Amino acid sequence: MISNTIQTVRHAFQALQQRICSHLEAEEKKKTFQQQKWSYPTGGGGDSRILSFGALIEKAGVNFSHIEGPSLPPAATLKRPGLTDQPFQALGVSVVVHPQNPYIPTSHLNIRLISVQRADQSIAWWFGGGYDLTPCYGFTEDCHDWHMTASQTCQPFGADVYQQYKKNCDQYFYLPHRQETRGIGGLFFDDVNQWEFERCLQFVTAIGNSYLSSYLQLIQRRKTHQYGPNEKQFQRYRRGRYVEFNLLYDRGTLFGLQSQGATESILMSLPPSVEWQYNWGLHPGSIEENFSKKYLKPTDWLNPKFASNTQRSTL
Amino acid sequence: MISNTIQTVRHAFQALQQRICSHLEAEEKKKTFQQQKWSYPTGGGGDSRILSFGALIEKAGVNFSHIEGPSLPPAATLKRPGLTDQPFQALGVSVVVHPQNPYIPTSHLNIRLISVQRADQSIAWWFGGGYDLTPCYGFTEDCHDWHMTASQTCQPFGADVYQQYKKNCDQYFYLPHRQETRGIGGLFFDDVNQWEFERCLQFVTAIGNSYLSSYLQLIQRRKTHQYGPNEKQFQRYRRGRYVEFNLLYDRGTLFGLQSQGATESILMSLPPSVEWQYNWGLHPGSIEENFSKKYLKPTDWLNPKFASNTQRSTL
Repeated sequence: MISNTIQTVRHAFQALQQRICSHLEAEEKKKTFQQQKWSYPTGGGGDSRILSFGALIEKAGVNFSHIEGPSLPPAATLKRPGLTDQPFQALGVSVVVHPQNPYIPTSHLNIRLISVQRADQSIAWWFGGGYDLTPCYGFTEDCHDWHMTASQTCQPFGADVYQQYKKNCDQYFYLPHRQETRGIGGLFFDDVNQWEFERCLQFVTAIGNSYLSSYLQLIQRRKTHQYGPNEKQFQRYRRGRYVEFNLLYDRGTLFGLQSQGATESILMSLPPSVEWQYNWGLHPGSIEENFSKKYLKPTDWLNPKFASNTQRSTL
Repeated sequence: MISNTIQTVRHAFQALQQRICSHLEAEEKKKTFQQQKWSYPTGGGGDSRILSFGALIEKAGVNFSHIEGPSLPPAATLKRPGLTDQPFQALGVSVVVHPQNPYIPTSHLNIRLISVQRADQSIAWWFGGGYDLTPCYGFTEDCHDWHMTASQTCQPFGADVYQQYKKNCDQYFYLPHRQETRGIGGLFFDDVNQWEFERCLQFVTAIGNSYLSSYLQLIQRRKTHQYGPNEKQFQRYRRGRYVEFNLLYDRGTLFGLQSQGATESILMSLPPSVEWQYNWGLHPGSIEENFSKKYLKPTDWLNPKFASNTQRSTL
C-alpha cells in the first residue's frame, strides 16, 4: 500500500469525525466539542474531541487517531504469525455518546484500518469496526430501525454480511457474569479485506455514515421524553454494566491500556456518572428485570413485529 | 487437616464478621446491615452483609464465605502443580467500606484460608489476605497511624513481616495505566503457611482485629469534617480509579467472575457512585495533582515526620 492510500483513508476518517461532531453539536446546542491532540510514543498521535455536561449530551468522545510503531501487540498478530515484529500503522475513528436523557440510548461506533509491512516489503492490511446501541429503556421500534439501517447498509456488500456481523456483535458485546448482552447490538467486524481495498474503505465509510443517520433519528425521536430522578438513577445503574464490559472484556480498551496508549482517550468511553448498589432493582416484575429479560439477549430485531411498537414496553 | 480445624477457622472468621458489623453499625446509627445468604454451585456458600445509603456509610459489604469444589481455578494452582484437580475448601472474610464523608478513606480487608486435599489424602493449606486504605484527601498522620498499627500487628510474627507484606501491597494495588497506587497501602500476603497452622490463624485473626481498630480510629477522627458538593465530586472521581483497579487488575474479582461465583457479592466492592470525566482535575496545582504526586506512590509512612501533620496537605 502506498502512502497515498493511507492518506486517502486518513482524509476519509477525519471527514467522518468532523461530520459526526458537527451533527451532534447541532443537536446539542449548549456545548461544543473541545479538541485535545496527543502523541503516540513511537509515532503519530490522535485528535480527541470531547463534549461534556451538555444539555443533550452528558459526555461524548469522537476520536481520530493515526499511530505507527515497530510492532503490533502480540495479541493482534496471533492469527498472523508472519506479521510479528513488523512495522505497522493503525488509523481509526472511535465514537461513544452518553446522552443526558435516559430515553436516548448510549451509542458506539468504531472503524479502523491496520496495515503492516511484511519482511518482503509488501503490505498486509485489514479493516475492522462496527457499531452498537445500549438503551436503558426498551422501545422495540428503535431496535428494529437501528438494525434495519444496519442491514440496508450491509446489503450492497453481500447477502449475508449483515447476519454475520450482527451475530459477531451479539457474541462480542456479552457479559458472561451477568448473562446479558451490553445492549441491543448492531454490527461488529474484524479482518475485513475480502474485497478490493477501495471497496473495503467504501464499506467502513458507509458504516460510519449510517451510524450517524441512524443515531440522529433516535435522538430526534426520544429527546423530548420527560424523565425524573428515578429514570436518571436507572440510567446510572445500567451504565455500571457498560463500565463492567469495557474494563473486563473490551479488547480495544485492554490492548490500549496494555500498550501504554493515551489513557484518558481510551477511557473516554466510560460513562460520566455511574452507580453500583447491591442487587439493585432485581426484584421480580421490576423495570430492570423486564428490560433484561426482553432486550439483553440476541434477538432478530428485523422481525416486522418489532417495527411499530411505540410503547415503553419495559414498563 | 481434620474437619475440626476447618470449623475452628470458620468460627473465628464468622466471629470477626460479626464484630466488624457490630462496630460499624454502632458508628453508623441510621442503617443496619442486611443479610443475604447464597449458595455456591459445587458446595457451601456465603453470608453477605450489606449496608447501603447510611448516614456515615454510603455502602459497605462484610462478607463471609465457605465454599468447596472439585478443583481450584487453574490460575490458583500455577505455583502448585500437584494440586490441580484436587478437591478444595476456601473460607474467607472480605470487607469494603465506602463512607459518605470524603475525608474518611475507603478501606478494604480480606483474610482467607485455602485447603486442598492431595491425591495421597494429605492436606495442603495456606492463608492469604491483607488490608489497604484508599483516601480521597491526604492526611499524613492517618497514613502514619494506619501503617504503624499494621507494623505493630506484624511485629510479634517476625522482624521483617511488615516490610515484606507492605511492599507486596504497594506492588499489588498499583494501576500501571495511571502510574499510581490505588491508595496508601497497608498489608498484602499470600501463601502464609511458614508457621504452625494455629500460629497462622492467630496472624490473620490479628490482622482482622487490627484492621477494625485502625479503621474505627480514622472514622472517629474524620467523621465530623465538613464537606460540600465539590468534595463529593472529587470522591466520585477518585472512586473511578477504584473501579478501574478492581475490574482491570484485582485477581480476586477476576477469578470470582470467571469461576461463576456470586456476581453481586463479588462486585459488592464497587463504589456506590462514580464519575468519569475526560482529564478531570489534572490541571497543574490542582488538589488531584497534589494528592496523586504526594500520596499515590510507595511511601515509608512509618517515618516519624508524617506523624503529626494534621493539615489537609493536598490543599
